[in-house]
Amino acid sequence: MAPIQSEKHIWFSEVEVRELISTFLLAQGLNQPQVDSMANMLTAAQRDGSLSHGLQRLPGTLDTMAHPRFNKQADPQVQNITPVLTRVDAHHGFSCLAAERGMSSLISSARDFGVGLLAVNNGFHSTALWPLVEQAANSGVAAMSMNPTHNWVVPSGGRSALLGTNPIAFAWPRPNSRPYVFDFATSAAARADIAMARNKQQQIPDDWGLDRNGQATTDPAEVLAGSMLPFGAHKGSAISTMIELLAGPMIGDRSSYQSKQFDADADAAPCHGELFIAFSPELTGGPDALHEAEAIFNGFTDQGARLPGNRRYQARDTSARMGIPVSVALMNRIRSLIP
Amino acid sequence: MAPIQSEKHIWFSEVEVRELISTFLLAQGLNQPQVDSMANMLTAAQRDGSLSHGLQRLPGTLDTMAHPRFNKQADPQVQNITPVLTRVDAHHGFSCLAAERGMSSLISSARDFGVGLLAVNNGFHSTALWPLVEQAANSGVAAMSMNPTHNWVVPSGGRSALLGTNPIAFAWPRPNSRPYVFDFATSAAARADIAMARNKQQQIPDDWGLDRNGQATTDPAEVLAGSMLPFGAHKGSAISTMIELLAGPMIGDRSSYQSKQFDADADAAPCHGELFIAFSPELTGGPDALHEAEAIFNGFTDQGARLPGNRRYQARDTSARMGIPVSVALMNRIRSLIP
Repeated sequence: MAPIQSEKHIWFSEVEVRELISTFLLAQGLNQPQVDSMANMLTAAQRDGSLSHGLQRLPGTLDTMAHPRFNKQADPQVQNITPVLTRVDAHHGFSCLAAERGMSSLISSARDFGVGLLAVNNGFHSTALWPLVEQAANSGVAAMSMNPTHNWVVPSGGRSALLGTNPIAFAWPRPNSRPYVFDFATSAAARADIAMARNKQQQIPDDWGLDRNGQATTDPAEVLAGSMLPFGAHKGSAISTMIELLAGPMIGDRSSYQSKQFDADADAAPCHGELFIAFSPELTGGPDALHEAEAIFNGFTDQGARLPGNRRYQARDTSARMGIPVSVALMNRIRSLIP
Repeated sequence: MAPIQSEKHIWFSEVEVRELISTFLLAQGLNQPQVDSMANMLTAAQRDGSLSHGLQRLPGTLDTMAHPRFNKQADPQVQNITPVLTRVDAHHGFSCLAAERGMSSLISSARDFGVGLLAVNNGFHSTALWPLVEQAANSGVAAMSMNPTHNWVVPSGGRSALLGTNPIAFAWPRPNSRPYVFDFATSAAARADIAMARNKQQQIPDDWGLDRNGQATTDPAEVLAGSMLPFGAHKGSAISTMIELLAGPMIGDRSSYQSKQFDADADAAPCHGELFIAFSPELTGGPDALHEAEAIFNGFTDQGARLPGNRRYQARDTSARMGIPVSVALMNRIRSLIP
């Protein structure tokens, strides 16, 4: 998450980051709406120091867009299935555009009825969840988001990969502060961190994963070939299973296992569904609901406990003052990939 | 969870267990609807080997019913706030009656609109969450339930108790099997287990809690006087915070901190709200949604991983064959408390 690493950086304006992303994606023939949506997501992540979901994702989009089913011209349309259930089919384009287009209907459902669901289907997913739940919270509703990935994670008590790294994000609106936001994978560690340890020939903790025989190991290569463990033992495994069900079959979309099969070794971003649930604290809890919640957040800060999301906000503030740091090596790599 | 411990047991029929509960609670002047609801919950837990939420809870209900705000005549009414938002005020009686009364409205909302919320308010809560989400799943909808408790849990990175042990339960309907159900506290360990270790003068793992100074300790007495840790480090802390917000201020009810204050050393069951969210897999995901989900459950059983809830189902089957085991010591204690 540290915005400035030891390697050489330059500082871009937000406009310049977006321009780099747009130039790269437009050169691949991606349509303008998807380009704009990807620029929104990747720029927000880069700006907030969430580097794993920032510009670093751009080279990998070439594999995604090369998937035989990827749709560069996808133009997802919002379907209101019921007054509280919105569906947007990403038509095998990037999922973030479909999700963005469904947000206002989701927010309206929550505001008018207390709760709303948004099911995004058939999207190639390579962006962070937090930007859109934060957007919902900035509109005064609480929101949750979750999705399957590929079957990389072993269920508690099992021996082989079945579940995805199934991230969950949540945002809560705050009257005089930026929203409370968290976003994490339900695996014990990020797959990228395990891959990094392998590349550096480092050992990993023995509760990050199992080898191909279902045995605990500290060898990252064995875990990448075997399975990752969920966070929090059987409780984390249960949360991951719930996400697998709700953001998979519940919305008529692929499980992590099916998403991996669909990939067929294309090494594309996982293609699956994404579920958003939004709530209206003010409709459900009354006009004081958000004010009452502040006591909980004060309970964190009074004892020096960090609220999740604050590191991103700090990076955001630094970026606003100093510009957005971009690794020169990454920038050169991205530019070299523009035909 | 083991239904038969080393101590002496007798085997009751379900009718006999209910009768013991009813006699006990009616003798305290609790009205019939609350008696029946408590009998439903405690009998189900005792039958399923979930002993911590079974008959063992009965003696403690005396403290709860002695709370100055407890309402023995509570007769909660279902309010349909919107087509998908149901509220039932428990009027300071036991929360389970209010929750039971709201279930059919919750289930209808999910079936008709894809999602429904049920907010239960002002209930003294001492029963397990799984019986009602299992009931929802038996009606073909997926359901989640959560609530605050008392502020016993320290947030990740903090030093003192702020959050509750905030349990979460989830159930998913299965076409040819009993539902997939989990129910767990978001603390690393159950408070009852820490108290048991103190009584037996045993040490506990150092990731269960902190002492009054916010330092890790293996002394259970220090943890009971200090704070319990959440499961799964910062990720479990985030889930617990989400529950605190959604089942607290979001539904206009007490946080765990406020619930502890409301108790005012009465040692009653925590009095707070409870949130249910129900979903219709068939409306949202299509007619094959439940069939598709079976592949995920097969992925568990094919590799010998236990599905959460199966231990309860096994105990239920044993109880159906052999009767429900009740500790003689507990039975005698309960009978001695009937005036």
